[in-house]
Amino acid sequence: MKLYKTLASDNFASVHPKILEAIANVNKGHAKAYGYDDITLKARNLFNEIFESKVETFFVFNGTGANILALNACTQRFSSVICPITAHINVDECGAPEFQLGIKTIAIATKDGKLSVEQIENYLHVIGNEHHSQPKVISISQSSELGTVYSTQEIKELADFAHKHSLYLHVDGARIANAVVSAKTSLAKMLVETKVDVISFGGTKNGLMLGEAVVFINQDLAKNVLYLRKQSMQLCSKMRYISAQFIALFENDLWLSNAKHANSVATYLESELQKIDWVKVLYPTQSNAVFCQLPREIIPLLQEKSFFWIWNEEKSIARFMCSFDSSREEIDEFIILLKNV
Amino acid sequence: MKLYKTLASDNFASVHPKILEAIANVNKGHAKAYGYDDITLKARNLFNEIFESKVETFFVFNGTGANILALNACTQRFSSVICPITAHINVDECGAPEFQLGIKTIAIATKDGKLSVEQIENYLHVIGNEHHSQPKVISISQSSELGTVYSTQEIKELADFAHKHSLYLHVDGARIANAVVSAKTSLAKMLVETKVDVISFGGTKNGLMLGEAVVFINQDLAKNVLYLRKQSMQLCSKMRYISAQFIALFENDLWLSNAKHANSVATYLESELQKIDWVKVLYPTQSNAVFCQLPREIIPLLQEKSFFWIWNEEKSIARFMCSFDSSREEIDEFIILLKNV
Amino acid sequence: MKLYKTLASDNFASVHPKILEAIANVNKGHAKAYGYDDITLKARNLFNEIFESKVETFFVFNGTGANILALNACTQRFSSVICPITAHINVDECGAPEFQLGIKTIAIATKDGKLSVEQIENYLHVIGNEHHSQPKVISISQSSELGTVYSTQEIKELADFAHKHSLYLHVDGARIANAVVSAKTSLAKMLVETKVDVISFGGTKNGLMLGEAVVFINQDLAKNVLYLRKQSMQLCSKMRYISAQFIALFENDLWLSNAKHANSVATYLESELQKIDWVKVLYPTQSNAVFCQLPREIIPLLQEKSFFWIWNEEKSIARFMCSFDSSREEIDEFIILLKNV
Amino acid sequence: MKLYKTLASDNFASVHPKILEAIANVNKGHAKAYGYDDITLKARNLFNEIFESKVETFFVFNGTGANILALNACTQRFSSVICPITAHINVDECGAPEFQLGIKTIAIATKDGKLSVEQIENYLHVIGNEHHSQPKVISISQSSELGTVYSTQEIKELADFAHKHSLYLHVDGARIANAVVSAKTSLAKMLVETKVDVISFGGTKNGLMLGEAVVFINQDLAKNVLYLRKQSMQLCSKMRYISAQFIALFENDLWLSNAKHANSVATYLESELQKIDWVKVLYPTQSNAVFCQLPREIIPLLQEKSFFWIWNEEKSIARFMCSFDSSREEIDEFIILLKNV
Repeated sequence: MKLYKTLASDNFASVHPKILEAIANVNKGHAKAYGYDDITLKARNLFNEIFESKVETFFVFNGTGANILALNACTQRFSSVICPITAHINVDECGAPEFQLGIKTIAIATKDGKLSVEQIENYLHVIGNEHHSQPKVISISQSSELGTVYSTQEIKELADFAHKHSLYLHVDGARIANAVVSAKTSLAKMLVETKVDVISFGGTKNGLMLGEAVVFINQDLAKNVLYLRKQSMQLCSKMRYISAQFIALFENDLWLSNAKHANSVATYLESELQKIDWVKVLYPTQSNAVFCQLPREIIPLLQEKSFFWIWNEEKSIARFMCSFDSSREEIDEFIILLKNV
Repeated sequence: MKLYKTLASDNFASVHPKILEAIANVNKGHAKAYGYDDITLKARNLFNEIFESKVETFFVFNGTGANILALNACTQRFSSVICPITAHINVDECGAPEFQLGIKTIAIATKDGKLSVEQIENYLHVIGNEHHSQPKVISISQSSELGTVYSTQEIKELADFAHKHSLYLHVDGARIANAVVSAKTSLAKMLVETKVDVISFGGTKNGLMLGEAVVFINQDLAKNVLYLRKQSMQLCSKMRYISAQFIALFENDLWLSNAKHANSVATYLESELQKIDWVKVLYPTQSNAVFCQLPREIIPLLQEKSFFWIWNEEKSIARFMCSFDSSREEIDEFIILLKNV
Repeated sequence: MKLYKTLASDNFASVHPKILEAIANVNKGHAKAYGYDDITLKARNLFNEIFESKVETFFVFNGTGANILALNACTQRFSSVICPITAHINVDECGAPEFQLGIKTIAIATKDGKLSVEQIENYLHVIGNEHHSQPKVISISQSSELGTVYSTQEIKELADFAHKHSLYLHVDGARIANAVVSAKTSLAKMLVETKVDVISFGGTKNGLMLGEAVVFINQDLAKNVLYLRKQSMQLCSKMRYISAQFIALFENDLWLSNAKHANSVATYLESELQKIDWVKVLYPTQSNAVFCQLPREIIPLLQEKSFFWIWNEEKSIARFMCSFDSSREEIDEFIILLKNV
Repeated sequence: MKLYKTLASDNFASVHPKILEAIANVNKGHAKAYGYDDITLKARNLFNEIFESKVETFFVFNGTGANILALNACTQRFSSVICPITAHINVDECGAPEFQLGIKTIAIATKDGKLSVEQIENYLHVIGNEHHSQPKVISISQSSELGTVYSTQEIKELADFAHKHSLYLHVDGARIANAVVSAKTSLAKMLVETKVDVISFGGTKNGLMLGEAVVFINQDLAKNVLYLRKQSMQLCSKMRYISAQFIALFENDLWLSNAKHANSVATYLESELQKIDWVKVLYPTQSNAVFCQLPREIIPLLQEKSFFWIWNEEKSIARFMCSFDSSREEIDEFIILLKNV
């Protein structure tokens, strides 16, 4: 294995040493399977603390699993979910919402990855008409897929609007830590006080080996989640090994310091890119992602030396993603590469 | 966390130290996500070696995920799968085959958890009749859910029968290692030469933290599995951490020695139970499970001291499951408990 | 077209002249589509009358459509439905409950096509356990698929038992008229007073061209049925042509006289068959079906002259089904055929 | 029942007298159920004649049923279908493609209801990438939902493009007769020579009581359709009553004369509307639909007198749909109403 690092993705990153240590520490003797062990109990309770509120928390394997489980709990067979066209549930899950739940995804184009109440309004006239799939969930990503971050006020407006129309608000929080840090606020202020219904709380992209949590702030929605999780193949038997990672993630606010670090490296990358006049940074870098337009011809050459993903082939847009283990030195190195490619 | 051990399940067990070590060893730098890393490549290739044949291997998170992915690849929307009534896919997956794939499960009662050609024959007259779900897969568990083991000859008969009727044979091998050890044969002889189509190859119950492999011996079936896995929420982003576990599992035949140990402890437990005249052992202990009928009144008392699962409430049947980390000393202790409860 | 008649099925029969007349009578001008016309309103209201109670009625195209819509309204994604092994939903709908709804069918063997509380009890211990699909509906056929009829008391016991365990009772009433006539009672007594939740009310097998009604006695279940019906492809655009048939079916109790006639011919057939010592009638003929064991060798010869269905190939069991347009003369003719084949 | 007529929809219309007569004519004796009768055989064969080619034809109940059955035969569990945003499958079937088949609908905005190759090209870069639902079908409506008609050349381009990328081309032909008449061509030229794969052939909107046909020009796709139809609750038991309608529809080219009439009335309506300067006709009236922008305030008043549907609330767009039984006199009457409202 090469010991290289890239700006490709926060899931190219390794596992934070503290997380690995926590896994090793619980590797003793037998424990009840399927989440009925003491470690899982402790981890689930910790979520009440970091949300400063009683929530219902369920661990799953991955981000798609978290999103689908959250949507499963919110929807019926004739429901649809409204989301930005860039949403992970719309474009990056191989049609899992449709396949798993049979629900329709209403995808709305946005300028920066963020949905607004105004954009959604046009899609609600179908409510009550049997010929149309019935909107039941608004789903947003925080941070968004384009690296932008909703303000607490924006989330509150979406939640209020959703509830006014008997919809739920789901937050795909694969990178929620980056958003909390960016917005200089707390989970309680960003998600609980605004009355978000359910969040997919990301772990893997913030230093875990694997593991996400579906956190129901609206606890009524959690009633049948045990069945839904099992049926969705997201019930881990030796669950203590996921739970222990979350306990470590919250210890000494590791989740926040990891995110803070990734964000700050991204900001540094943005500033360095902005110095190059033939590179166009596209969105405000509010979390750990930087999107920019590059000269088409240099992309394959650059990718060979430091792999990254092309976000939009046609428009020659690249995505650079920073991780808890990215460093300014790597950025400096990358910028040199870029300039000399 | 209590440092106790139980006879409850092989997924109550911890992670084998060699497996944990392997995880730690790959925790360096960045690696391509979603299985495109070098470690995963190596692990997938290793399956060709242990199957002594070119196979197509896909890693997933858990046993239900493995079974459903295997069945997904074998079936169409109007298919049914024939299995023993005790099959994990029939009773232990919260209806995942029906929910995930929309297929029908035809569950057949057996005397010892094993299906025979004779039993299946009656269910095939519906083939070609549009009013009936069309049988497409025979699914067996090896070792079976009742701890028995199919002989290689029995598997060959099922596979031949399946293929004669244009069906596939799927093996739920959550405990395949225990069966291979029990039958004193090889994977190649048991599964490849008999022409099994696809196997859910178990890792978690044999000392892994988590991780199973779906191995397509019939490679034609593997064509679309990448899509099916993603859509089924079974695609691990940091896959190297699953792959590394399988590499370690195959090193120095750890998978076989773990299973051999569990089987031998189960055999010892069986022999000790048979000495107690008010305990009735129910099936031949051919792998790591022992089923026995216990006096109803002692069950709760015994469970309090050493937790185990009741297999059949009505008939007062308990299941004891041995693991790679079970020991004869624990059995001795347990037998004393049992006698004095 | 040959002008023959058979004992094959009540859906081989033609359309009752009064029904056809009713269709012609509404063929004037334009009418609101999708059930918002006056004729449909009238037909739906008529159901309140014949059920002597406020019910919620929805017209669909066929029997499978009716059963699936009823089960759809009763279930969630992790639900299972308990039914006799002979149930239409279990064996004659090509896996529609699994495919359409993702639910599991728990099929119980019976001696005469009828389920009893005792038989069901064993299947409820899984309630509350996330590893198992959760029973939510008991589904029975009235008349049963074997021509037997539940007494009102038997239905009440099933309904009480279902409700005690938070389950619903669904009645597949493809031949409900035959059962009502047979039990010499009313729909109100048989279904409303016993607290059945929902019934698939058959039309096609009782003289209609096509059309079934899903009648919710438990009106809470009807809340989202408009969406479910549309999504299930069971919403007829020119609905007046189905509705008019039901209006005619209830006029002068045509539905009862049709059923009475079919039942009485079946009883006559049964008595004639019982006179032949090499024919074994298998179940009490309580509705319009007669099942009997025939000498295997005569079956193809007899089928050539008067087509009928073999119910059980292995046991050489034939099903004879009488219709509103069957006659004693045909039976006499058939018996002669049978004796001389 | 009021004997009024409207411009609301071609499914508000009654049944053509010839169709009703045909139904009455087959109402004799018994006939094999589920499509195994002689009348259905004859009707299916007739489709070979009108398509001037060997096709595989299956009758279903309604338009949604036809579309879903066609898509079912074309897709796998991870497939997506590309269609105009106005497509019936996208907006008028309560999410049936997603619910029934689990597939994703990729909806593309168009200026006139018609898709072009250029528009689709951008959506195919996901082919081969496991993170994305895989495009497998292009679905167009002919006539389109906005009353426009694809030229034979346009269809050929779409079919060629589809096949080049291993996709299928499906035509929602709920109003195919109107398109054939409009394009002054034949089914063979429009659909067979262009190599369309499968068409939902409309009956209900062209004078039938109910009944649509799914016609597979690409016969390989028809292999499992019997199972899919049954499972999709679209198998009519007394099928002769649907088949007889299609036989009558093709007799003396009734299907074409009905469509011709409807189209010509629509053209007349368009010309009359264009004379009113405060009414803006929006698309070329190429079939039986006319869309126009009306002063918002007159709409409810006008609807009260002659009901019609609002296509777009926000933009104050009305849809007027002509039927086989519409007349110029009604149009004149309606125009007077409009002018004096």
